[in-house]
Amino acid sequence: MKKIAVTIGDPSGIGPEIVLKALVQNPQIYENCVPIVFGHAAILEAQKRISSIDVHIRQLDDIATLPEVSENHIVCYSENKLKELPETGTINARSGALSFEYIRMAIEQANLGQIDAVATAPINKEALKLAGVPFGDHTAMFSKLTNSSKTMTLFVTGNLRIFFLTRHIAFREISSALSEKQIVSALHNCHHYLKQIGIKEPRLAVAALNPHGGEHGLFGDEEQNIISPAVQKSQAEGLSVTGPVPADSVFQLCKEGYYDGVLSLYHDQGHIAAKTLDFYGTVSLTMGLPFLRTSVDHGTALEIAGQNKANPTSMTKAIEAAIHYMWP
Amino acid sequence: MKKIAVTIGDPSGIGPEIVLKALVQNPQIYENCVPIVFGHAAILEAQKRISSIDVHIRQLDDIATLPEVSENHIVCYSENKLKELPETGTINARSGALSFEYIRMAIEQANLGQIDAVATAPINKEALKLAGVPFGDHTAMFSKLTNSSKTMTLFVTGNLRIFFLTRHIAFREISSALSEKQIVSALHNCHHYLKQIGIKEPRLAVAALNPHGGEHGLFGDEEQNIISPAVQKSQAEGLSVTGPVPADSVFQLCKEGYYDGVLSLYHDQGHIAAKTLDFYGTVSLTMGLPFLRTSVDHGTALEIAGQNKANPTSMTKAIEAAIHYMWP
Repeated sequence: MKKIAVTIGDPSGIGPEIVLKALVQNPQIYENCVPIVFGHAAILEAQKRISSIDVHIRQLDDIATLPEVSENHIVCYSENKLKELPETGTINARSGALSFEYIRMAIEQANLGQIDAVATAPINKEALKLAGVPFGDHTAMFSKLTNSSKTMTLFVTGNLRIFFLTRHIAFREISSALSEKQIVSALHNCHHYLKQIGIKEPRLAVAALNPHGGEHGLFGDEEQNIISPAVQKSQAEGLSVTGPVPADSVFQLCKEGYYDGVLSLYHDQGHIAAKTLDFYGTVSLTMGLPFLRTSVDHGTALEIAGQNKANPTSMTKAIEAAIHYMWP
Repeated sequence: MKKIAVTIGDPSGIGPEIVLKALVQNPQIYENCVPIVFGHAAILEAQKRISSIDVHIRQLDDIATLPEVSENHIVCYSENKLKELPETGTINARSGALSFEYIRMAIEQANLGQIDAVATAPINKEALKLAGVPFGDHTAMFSKLTNSSKTMTLFVTGNLRIFFLTRHIAFREISSALSEKQIVSALHNCHHYLKQIGIKEPRLAVAALNPHGGEHGLFGDEEQNIISPAVQKSQAEGLSVTGPVPADSVFQLCKEGYYDGVLSLYHDQGHIAAKTLDFYGTVSLTMGLPFLRTSVDHGTALEIAGQNKANPTSMTKAIEAAIHYMWP
């Protein structure tokens, strides 16, 4: 049976709650894999009480000698004992450090071949920064710790598949971050990744940057100077690419099946599309690693942490996508 | 009976087709108003043949002495005869000039009190520019020709209502176009306009600019320096406003009913949300004019013009919204 690591994310946020709920409410997960929660048993025990969930939680000492796991048992793994429970609902250094520790352990086990795919709960960038963690997000951690240079995020909801050219940079820096070379290279990667998840002849589209695609330079010229040349070069290199397509129709067209994937130019461009359309059902895949990593597409939601209000749908979808798209 | 002007937009695009189809396929429109098409009868006659539609088209000489209009009759109005049919599917000066002429006439009649609301089909900015029309979009035309200084676009689909702070400017100019004063002023207008369409105590939200709202300055500081102060000032002035809310959740939250309207900061921010969610059903209202103006939320679609392929749903919704939200 394949083993999937599920990291609980920042323990001050809703991560432990949605991981617990996802596993308890979806016994079908256990038919297709063994989920191993990366996080401290004490945190899950506390969450179990808050959410009044009846389940056995068992701390593993060694993943290689895994006992039989059934739907009534949650096994979790951590390298050391927890001294005290982290605060709930705040941004704090300790939770930042813990959230990184869980991810680091999961990657280590995946690198050792003990884990086949990783599904991650949300972490908090500010908490990571407070803890002095030298990474700003999951993707940076996974890239570095697996020695991968070309990772790329892929959002999936129905027919709509969205890649991101840039992500966590300031809005005002987006325009100057674009280059023809980088777009061509990204399109080749998108093509490869779509094939990896089973699309034989991927048809790609690139979103435009300016409203209405700049209308031939009336407002903004990145389409003429950077994006169109990149599309032409990619076509000449054998890819099926359309664009730049105005951002307010490109996602709709992909949703309707005109393309297999869209390269969005910045974080919110693709995020607004996926999350307004299907907030709870969108799954995030990290492509370009030696193993599959999937993730919820929402944040730590500190404002509702510890209140048993969190919706586990996205976490469930992330675990299910890890099973569905896992490398053979 | 109230009279609604329906302008056919750029006659080289799909405007004439969607206007004709919307009126012919929706006889209920005639129960609640008299629609008057602003466009040349010859263009509608040509479209009628292309779409094999059986309907009587009648040219009006004077709107004040309107004959009885039933669902089998389309009445249209223009000040002069058409010398030759415009080209189909191209960007050209003649169609740019005609599209402006129809709008100018509709506004003139509305200013005279002959028209109660205007629903507009799409126009093409480049064609307007080629024709030397001194306006870049509908909103600019309606503002100037009705002497209105505070117009604002409002997108509506279900519970989701989206206002726009900036619109047709280059992407790279958006950040420097934001100011606290302008956001406060916009929020007051949004509040007023939501009351105008029947929401008694409007709850507003403002979208953030940077990914995750900048995460307290980690990437981008417009939230801290401009948007938050504007929200606080607006609250102090008595408005119910939340924000800045990250752009990838604010539209979802409005859709779920947490707010009555969202102020988006730039064109694509709100457009991607509305059009990925409900491409054909989103209606655009122009608020702040002496009369209501509604509009389709898509473009001229030159690539399918004249092929009887255009979907009239958005045009139908625009006409229905004009009837629904028309000033008393």
